[in-house]
Amino acid sequence: MPYVNIKITDENVTTEQKARLVKGVTQLLVEVLDKNPATTHVIIDEVKTENWGIGYDLVSDLRKKATQKE
Amino acid sequence: MPYVNIKITDENVTTEQKARLVKGVTQLLVEVLDKNPATTHVIIDEVKTENWGIGYDLVSDLRKKATQKE
Amino acid sequence: MPYVNIKITDENVTTEQKARLVKGVTQLLVEVLDKNPATTHVIIDEVKTENWGIGYDLVSDLRKKATQKE
Amino acid sequence: MPYVNIKITDENVTTEQKARLVKGVTQLLVEVLDKNPATTHVIIDEVKTENWGIGYDLVSDLRKKATQKE
Amino acid sequence: MPYVNIKITDENVTTEQKARLVKGVTQLLVEVLDKNPATTHVIIDEVKTENWGIGYDLVSDLRKKATQKE
Amino acid sequence: MPYVNIKITDENVTTEQKARLVKGVTQLLVEVLDKNPATTHVIIDEVKTENWGIGYDLVSDLRKKATQKE
Repeated sequence: MPYVNIKITDENVTTEQKARLVKGVTQLLVEVLDKNPATTHVIIDEVKTENWGIGYDLVSDLRKKATQKE
Repeated sequence: MPYVNIKITDENVTTEQKARLVKGVTQLLVEVLDKNPATTHVIIDEVKTENWGIGYDLVSDLRKKATQKE
Repeated sequence: MPYVNIKITDENVTTEQKARLVKGVTQLLVEVLDKNPATTHVIIDEVKTENWGIGYDLVSDLRKKATQKE
Repeated sequence: MPYVNIKITDENVTTEQKARLVKGVTQLLVEVLDKNPATTHVIIDEVKTENWGIGYDLVSDLRKKATQKE
Repeated sequence: MPYVNIKITDENVTTEQKARLVKGVTQLLVEVLDKNPATTHVIIDEVKTENWGIGYDLVSDLRKKATQKE
Repeated sequence: MPYVNIKITDENVTTEQKARLVKGVTQLLVEVLDKNPATTHVIIDEVKTENWGIGYDLVSDLRKKATQKE
């Protein structure tokens, strides 16, 4: 019956990667807690980098600075 | 004062259906718990089918398989 | 497949009231969006009044003021 | 280590405003609780006005009525 | 930078099981998306069975019925 | 109309600190986005350190190691 919400930045995540996340998290819940996969939900939120902040800064700004340094 | 979050797959939900969800949930909270509708918030998240997993699979893949069977 | 999260203040909500909330929300999703009740999850969070703020104030403080006025 | 989620209606919020929200919330957590900004996450969800209900109504409908009255 | 929220029913989950969930989910995000584990947060919510509904019923009621059948 | 959810570890946060968080976040939303404080909700979740993971580890384990080093 578990519900899992994964929030990641929206940076070119492929459908194949999403499928692996869902499979992996569901397997983990079956193995560790013997949960029923049929009612295990996994929801992936892709958050725009300008909507995610860490350490006072927007991720979009951090990405720009990282690019400039390269 | 309640806050309600409804997560559904993003599959052609109309504005009229959203209005019915908001009205229905708010009424329920007024009836069952005597809450104040003026501060009752309902937020509907429409999640892309490729971002929702259930039973090891992405809903987008489940939809494709269902279509192929028909 | 929907997932619903209801956040209310923790103020003597009975199990019977919780059952009515779950039944009511699930029925609404079946009626409005033709969702499958078997995979419809409703999670109720009871939040302590000192952990909920509205209009600059903690609900616990608002409750105290309301009691003093009576 | 805190995690903060801010949900607002999607109504022309600028990147500069988002940056101010992230900075302000992070500062508050550092000042009040002495949290480490390096692991403080702030996620801003911009919700379409037709997906947010308050007081039985969708915000999109409230905005329309307000415009008509002007 | 990901943030993961796992909601499960509050039914005797041990600290060792929680540690395995955190390790497993973090590893998955590192493997699939090359995320930085140092800023990957996993939050586990244990929800009382009387606060979780599925298929019109509270889990607490489903558990009682299951026990009576045995 | 905003809704803000603050998740922090459950480590002796006082009611006075919670009141400061609510006041500060609400003020920020009024200043930056001109939001109405009367319908601005702030919910604080205090999460047990054994239910919060970061960098593969439970915070409860990190706290123990930190104590042992001192």
